[in-house]
Amino acid sequence: MSRAVRGPVAIVGLGALGGSLARALAALPEPPELRGWATDAADLEAAVEVGVAACGSTAEAADGAGWIVVATPLGATEAVLAEAAGVLGPGARVIDLGSLQGPALAAAAAVGVADRFVACHPMAGSEASGFRASRADLFGDVTVYLSVTLDAPEEPGRDVEAFWETLGARPEWTEPDPHDARMVVASHLPQLVSNALAEVIAEGGFSTADLGPGGLDMTRLAASDPTMWRDLLAHSGSQSAALLRLTARALEGWARVLDADDLDEVERRMAETRAWRRG
Amino acid sequence: MSRAVRGPVAIVGLGALGGSLARALAALPEPPELRGWATDAADLEAAVEVGVAACGSTAEAADGAGWIVVATPLGATEAVLAEAAGVLGPGARVIDLGSLQGPALAAAAAVGVADRFVACHPMAGSEASGFRASRADLFGDVTVYLSVTLDAPEEPGRDVEAFWETLGARPEWTEPDPHDARMVVASHLPQLVSNALAEVIAEGGFSTADLGPGGLDMTRLAASDPTMWRDLLAHSGSQSAALLRLTARALEGWARVLDADDLDEVERRMAETRAWRRG
Repeated sequence: MSRAVRGPVAIVGLGALGGSLARALAALPEPPELRGWATDAADLEAAVEVGVAACGSTAEAADGAGWIVVATPLGATEAVLAEAAGVLGPGARVIDLGSLQGPALAAAAAVGVADRFVACHPMAGSEASGFRASRADLFGDVTVYLSVTLDAPEEPGRDVEAFWETLGARPEWTEPDPHDARMVVASHLPQLVSNALAEVIAEGGFSTADLGPGGLDMTRLAASDPTMWRDLLAHSGSQSAALLRLTARALEGWARVLDADDLDEVERRMAETRAWRRG
Repeated sequence: MSRAVRGPVAIVGLGALGGSLARALAALPEPPELRGWATDAADLEAAVEVGVAACGSTAEAADGAGWIVVATPLGATEAVLAEAAGVLGPGARVIDLGSLQGPALAAAAAVGVADRFVACHPMAGSEASGFRASRADLFGDVTVYLSVTLDAPEEPGRDVEAFWETLGARPEWTEPDPHDARMVVASHLPQLVSNALAEVIAEGGFSTADLGPGGLDMTRLAASDPTMWRDLLAHSGSQSAALLRLTARALEGWARVLDADDLDEVERRMAETRAWRRG
């Protein structure tokens, strides 16, 4: 068993992210003992096939575990942490895999496990959900943002860094507030724009069969998990709304340029976004 | 040489699409003679390496050719067709690869080659441009929309169908007006939304390194060729503008829902777009 991953590892939530973590750990040269619990029976059953011992509750999975991984939608994080807190061993490490770190750290503080909790956000999200969308190599070469509460001890953080490095990911420390503000722009805004664009195309009477590669890419996120996003937007709703209004104004700006037939301006702005996108 | 592709084949414009066609034809079991001309010297030079004979003009490439392929931005189509028209043999087939068929057919009519011209739109566009972005398998299993003027003879159409089938594509007949209207929704709108989203993210001080897979996909089209789009939007500007305004209103609708913290509505609308996107 890898030193960085002393088992048992309890994974709560076995969708695309939790399932991928189970697969990645099972694929290690010396895999740790894996336990899982998920409210989705199909996910739990599928995880058993890759070597996860199915438990009947968070408490059962967490009891005596070396690692607890919360891989549920954000709305369930506090309840899962609360249930785990009652059975956690003294050296246990606790992480989540969510994309908003402030609310996750607040949940850990609320149930008294902030000293051993490290918020982990792997930049590996997709529109796919459920264990069937999991992949053993999902975290390979992926940035994982880590953050802790201000007065957290150092040792859990070092262990969590080593944990992700063992899986081939690139852990990177961040602060929860700027991290979350960045995610609203980098992740929540593109998600919502994809939903709105899909609505407009669908209302026009078009199906995905009418789209080329570009239209398919631009609506891919519109297939994302509504429950996961409901929970994220419960925390970032007003910031997301402000960015959507900015984007609406940008679209109206393009509409004015096109109505005025100002093709020089079209070309100039496209050259600018091209330079930005190519880095 | 394949019966469907009697050479020489003259390809004018050797970017991602014209270059891919050159590669696909060169990879046939009995490849036709290939000739090329492009205003981009690097594209022309690169095409020589896959077996294209470099010409010095459209007229030189088209002289005595069995096929003329116009693979330039739409703004150059009429001039290329005019130059080719002077040297075309009687049985020559003439096609383009553009995404708006009405303007291409109008250009062919203006220079007197409508009777042998078939507008061809392969649904294989991408943000990549130049010969370096070309791929021999780009057209494999791709829908290619074909259209002709109302009184066009049938034989060129049958030859063009066979041409695309030889390359593994799926030719499908359409009418230019509904086709072009569909492309404004399926292709021009996603393109412009990607540009506007990239502007908002860039103005927020973010680079592509800050994006995850979703944000990268949603801004991928923002790297598309400004010249190609300038020419397309010269024809679809006002229709595109109307759709951008619809999309701006959709974004404002989402902003209102988020500001009202109406998470049930968020989840309901996301479930709807998910169902649509999954087909």
